[in-house]
Amino acid sequence: MKNRIGIRYSILLLFVVFITHAQNNKKPLQLMPWPQNITVSEGQFLLSKDFEVNCVGAVNSRILKAATQFLRRVDARSGLFFKQGYLTKANESPKAALQINCKRIGKVELYEDESYQLAVTANSINIDANTDLGALHALETLYQLLQNNGSQFYFPTVTINDNPRYVWRGLMIDGSRHFIPLEVLKRNLDGMAAMKLNVFHWHLVDDQGWRIEIKKYPQLTELASDGQFYTQTEIASIVDYATEKGILVVPEIDVPGHASAILSVFPEIGSATTTYAVSRKSGIHDPTLDPTNPKTYEILENIFKEVCPLFPGAYFHIGGDENNGAEWDANPKIQEFKKKNHIESNHDLQTYFNMKLVPMLQKQGKQLMGWEEIMTPNMSKDAIIHAWRGVNEGVEAGGSLIKAAKNGYKTVLSNGFYIDLMLSVDSHYLNDPMPKNAVFTPAEKARILGGEATMWSELVTPLTIDSRIWPRTAAIAERLWSSDTVKDLESMHKRLKAVSYQLETIGLTHIRNKEVILRNIANYQDTKALNDFTNICEPYKIYKRNGGGKKYFMYSPLTLFADACAADASDAYEFNKAVKSFLENKTLENQKTITDYLKKWVNMNQELVQLSNDAPLIQPLLPMAKQLSTIAIELVANLENKKALNKTLIQENLKLLNERNVADVELAIYESLKKLADL
Amino acid sequence: MKNRIGIRYSILLLFVVFITHAQNNKKPLQLMPWPQNITVSEGQFLLSKDFEVNCVGAVNSRILKAATQFLRRVDARSGLFFKQGYLTKANESPKAALQINCKRIGKVELYEDESYQLAVTANSINIDANTDLGALHALETLYQLLQNNGSQFYFPTVTINDNPRYVWRGLMIDGSRHFIPLEVLKRNLDGMAAMKLNVFHWHLVDDQGWRIEIKKYPQLTELASDGQFYTQTEIASIVDYATEKGILVVPEIDVPGHASAILSVFPEIGSATTTYAVSRKSGIHDPTLDPTNPKTYEILENIFKEVCPLFPGAYFHIGGDENNGAEWDANPKIQEFKKKNHIESNHDLQTYFNMKLVPMLQKQGKQLMGWEEIMTPNMSKDAIIHAWRGVNEGVEAGGSLIKAAKNGYKTVLSNGFYIDLMLSVDSHYLNDPMPKNAVFTPAEKARILGGEATMWSELVTPLTIDSRIWPRTAAIAERLWSSDTVKDLESMHKRLKAVSYQLETIGLTHIRNKEVILRNIANYQDTKALNDFTNICEPYKIYKRNGGGKKYFMYSPLTLFADACAADASDAYEFNKAVKSFLENKTLENQKTITDYLKKWVNMNQELVQLSNDAPLIQPLLPMAKQLSTIAIELVANLENKKALNKTLIQENLKLLNERNVADVELAIYESLKKLADL
Repeated sequence: MKNRIGIRYSILLLFVVFITHAQNNKKPLQLMPWPQNITVSEGQFLLSKDFEVNCVGAVNSRILKAATQFLRRVDARSGLFFKQGYLTKANESPKAALQINCKRIGKVELYEDESYQLAVTANSINIDANTDLGALHALETLYQLLQNNGSQFYFPTVTINDNPRYVWRGLMIDGSRHFIPLEVLKRNLDGMAAMKLNVFHWHLVDDQGWRIEIKKYPQLTELASDGQFYTQTEIASIVDYATEKGILVVPEIDVPGHASAILSVFPEIGSATTTYAVSRKSGIHDPTLDPTNPKTYEILENIFKEVCPLFPGAYFHIGGDENNGAEWDANPKIQEFKKKNHIESNHDLQTYFNMKLVPMLQKQGKQLMGWEEIMTPNMSKDAIIHAWRGVNEGVEAGGSLIKAAKNGYKTVLSNGFYIDLMLSVDSHYLNDPMPKNAVFTPAEKARILGGEATMWSELVTPLTIDSRIWPRTAAIAERLWSSDTVKDLESMHKRLKAVSYQLETIGLTHIRNKEVILRNIANYQDTKALNDFTNICEPYKIYKRNGGGKKYFMYSPLTLFADACAADASDAYEFNKAVKSFLENKTLENQKTITDYLKKWVNMNQELVQLSNDAPLIQPLLPMAKQLSTIAIELVANLENKKALNKTLIQENLKLLNERNVADVELAIYESLKKLADL
Repeated sequence: MKNRIGIRYSILLLFVVFITHAQNNKKPLQLMPWPQNITVSEGQFLLSKDFEVNCVGAVNSRILKAATQFLRRVDARSGLFFKQGYLTKANESPKAALQINCKRIGKVELYEDESYQLAVTANSINIDANTDLGALHALETLYQLLQNNGSQFYFPTVTINDNPRYVWRGLMIDGSRHFIPLEVLKRNLDGMAAMKLNVFHWHLVDDQGWRIEIKKYPQLTELASDGQFYTQTEIASIVDYATEKGILVVPEIDVPGHASAILSVFPEIGSATTTYAVSRKSGIHDPTLDPTNPKTYEILENIFKEVCPLFPGAYFHIGGDENNGAEWDANPKIQEFKKKNHIESNHDLQTYFNMKLVPMLQKQGKQLMGWEEIMTPNMSKDAIIHAWRGVNEGVEAGGSLIKAAKNGYKTVLSNGFYIDLMLSVDSHYLNDPMPKNAVFTPAEKARILGGEATMWSELVTPLTIDSRIWPRTAAIAERLWSSDTVKDLESMHKRLKAVSYQLETIGLTHIRNKEVILRNIANYQDTKALNDFTNICEPYKIYKRNGGGKKYFMYSPLTLFADACAADASDAYEFNKAVKSFLENKTLENQKTITDYLKKWVNMNQELVQLSNDAPLIQPLLPMAKQLSTIAIELVANLENKKALNKTLIQENLKLLNERNVADVELAIYESLKKLADL
């Protein structure tokens, strides 16, 4: 009950803070995820170069490092030249303004206490937490609170009581389709920590590459990784890095499907009598381990024996998804095995396979987790069900999550959090792991652990991956941490914009790399026009960009216009809002906002044509730019000079804009243009 | 003699190419370093998606990887979706358009054959090289040749015969003052390979941190690295990475000075009876190893035994610089030792020390290299002398290089290549290791191995280091590779601009990170005005920014305006040229170029004032911006309206602009403003 009051209060405050901003120059708080309880008062804690931090209570190297990093980050933002260098021990600056007090050392596992209290007064800042993991979260909140009054930096005086809504707040990164190097993972772990996410799910193998060193089978990485893999030492370094940020790492070895890479090395445990090869394309592949072959389990057990000890957490993800059964159906030996053992379906055969893995993993102290396909009648209730399928896969969104919770499984939601699909942040933000359409017992409810954003890497490289993860994953983080009543889209968009910059400042590359791609496309000419275009274009969504896996192979260039674009194109967001306002209220001011944009795009088209003379990669964009320009000219003439619209011309161009284009992007202002043309 | 003809011819062509550009739309070649011999003809090799590469002759994994990388890079530039994926064996596509033929596998050592021939015709491309190392260089040249005609990409038909002028073309990176992570080193090794540099000198330890894991003495990194160090596995991974790029890695363990870090762990081998601590500041420190203590040599030998095998190359750098002798002078035991052993000076004592290291290193198969201070009368002639001192250190520039060569030492020049001093690229470009004022025998000449850019890291972090190394180091690379007759500054500047973008495309961050710093300074507001300002400001040069090491400690923020600025501010370069033209020829056109710039800076000042209301880090820039704006307003009124100049006002503001400012930058248009004000 206490919590609910807190939540209501925080929402009220969220409102108060934004309202008061306009009135007395109080700046809006750019917090994300929004805390459970927050009280803002009038004062300010002014920062000076004497600012220091002190850690008391249970002090470990993790909190000392976090406090040092906090100092360096605030100093980098403020340029104050703090005097305190590196924190090395407990209570080394008893008079420090920022006091961090942790009751005990936290364990990086699910259900650990991550709560914290943060109290900023005009003269002091106190962080109190049951565990250092809570204190880590508090430092991230405090960093987000940093403000300035033009000449000085300060923290507004606040009292925050905070704790997460869900215990599983995850991000999955697929290191197989495209290899994702260590430093990319590290900066994304920094981003996760900033957003209070606590589970990094590491998809380590797939049809396109075996990415983890197995000392007993060096041939796995020698033959099936193109030399791009994580050594066990490197794996350990990532686990250490995550642990220092309070993040649990869950490894995934995807079996029995997605097996092209492992079968290219061990064809003898495949379900077909064929040679296998590492795949270079996307999509669902046939190669599947043979569940009837004892050698399969022998090899897997040896692999698990090496992989499990690298990850101190309790969970091990065995994948289990998208086994299309083609090789099983085609193999008479397997069919015979099914008959002999009274195994009716391929699903049951996979359960047979999965159940062989359960004790293997138990021996290693691990609990099995798998994608929702593992949830068959005989599956162990100890397994965690990772719900991922939805309308794209022809099933009801979130349906398997409900089924899992009701059937006694712990479960995590990824359906609706597939950030690789390039959908709007709004859809992810409003996707709550707790289904609205189901009635749960408290026990069932408790089995819904939380959610996880999934970054599949068919269409990303180290250059672009951050721009697919961020900033949208910050909004997902808020969904998983904050109260379900925190769901105002406009507030989220405003804070997300600020948070996106904060994430760049701490090292993510989602903003800066866009210009790198555009400079390449522009052949090192000016990128302004291209940049304007990216702000109204979004990459094709769902699986449209690489339908059937026919265009992009794993070595195809991902340095194109669609790669510079992202979900939630910024000018499109503003323009669409402006058109909505204008259609509701045709003021001159509203009209001007619209015509300014339209004129910008007319100019953009001209500039792109110019640039294309020395930049072939701009050529594929010219038809769209021209169609848009044609429509924009008509609309401006209509709006400003009341010239009648040439409806045929507009219809023609709208139709062309709506067709599939070679640039693999959609115009995110399309619907607004249509509405304006209907005037 | 053949070479000289080639050189003359290439210079002629360089001229021809730029001249013909204006006449027949032939694009200038953006090659750097400029090849020894190049013949350009009229044709083009047009690229299509069927483009393939084939390797024959001596084929190793290095050339296969390089060829694959070449394919991926060209595909990323052209977006052609090449069909060929990963090259895995010799002669796998006999009909490929690009044929690479290496006679033998090269050894990554000095004096290896790095020459290559590259012949592009309309239908084929042939690379022929004595070693794969030459072929690697050829691929970099070919990548630079990529051009387009607006709709298609092509390579111009050329014949190139190329080889380096110097055998030692180095870049040193200091991983101690600020720790430089692996991925930063890797991207810089990519940059080195692109510029045909072949020696990476890795400064691993200094007063500010011991950065290399020593298994026998784990306390070195436990106590003296703040947790920031390279494990031996990581060292090996960098050496592997460099070797795959044809780059030799030379480690440096700096002794007997620069010893604060090692002495903080082993105070017993220090020359003073004091406690030592890892230093947090810049400058020359007293802590020095005790050359009279046998334990010193025992520890060093154990360290060398571990470090040497990690580096397959023949050279080991022992530093040896900047031992100020303070601790030796103050220690009676050391003074007594000198007397007893008839050692006259501290220099002789250091020679005694150095000569003890020679056999230790010889046992490990290494040849000793050291900074020029090691060159004392009794020093072994096997040592390589690294000449670094110059006018800043009160000695004649390059003097020690001449002395070394004449005294029988092999020698490498770094004086004049100190890129951390933030000097103009011109000064580095015109700094030739072969002194013009000395007469050498052929043997003496042969001892001048080449040169090395030095990236000391007192004032750089992973965020900024690339912008201090690049693009200037590309010009140094040309000095070390190309003929000494290639020295036209304007041609260099033009090509450097293109090469700078190329370097960004292959992964360097010197361009993209500037905006990251500016966004932070602007508190996430628009960065245009700040960016304009960076284009006329340069960080204080030589040691002015951190004079006496009093402002910046190793944990001070390097996210400030001076960190976003770089040497060779781009608008300043153009404005200074324009002022020169105008003063020679007062046309209206020349005048307009100038007044456009001046007006831009008046606007910039207004915008900065606006932005500063929500960005305290802009405050320190406002005085300069205002002074500049005041002068600019006067000059525009004078130039456009013949209004008489208010000389007092201008003098006053020029004087203020010339004073030390808190932003730690100088206005790179200062002299031009002065000239305009003198009209």
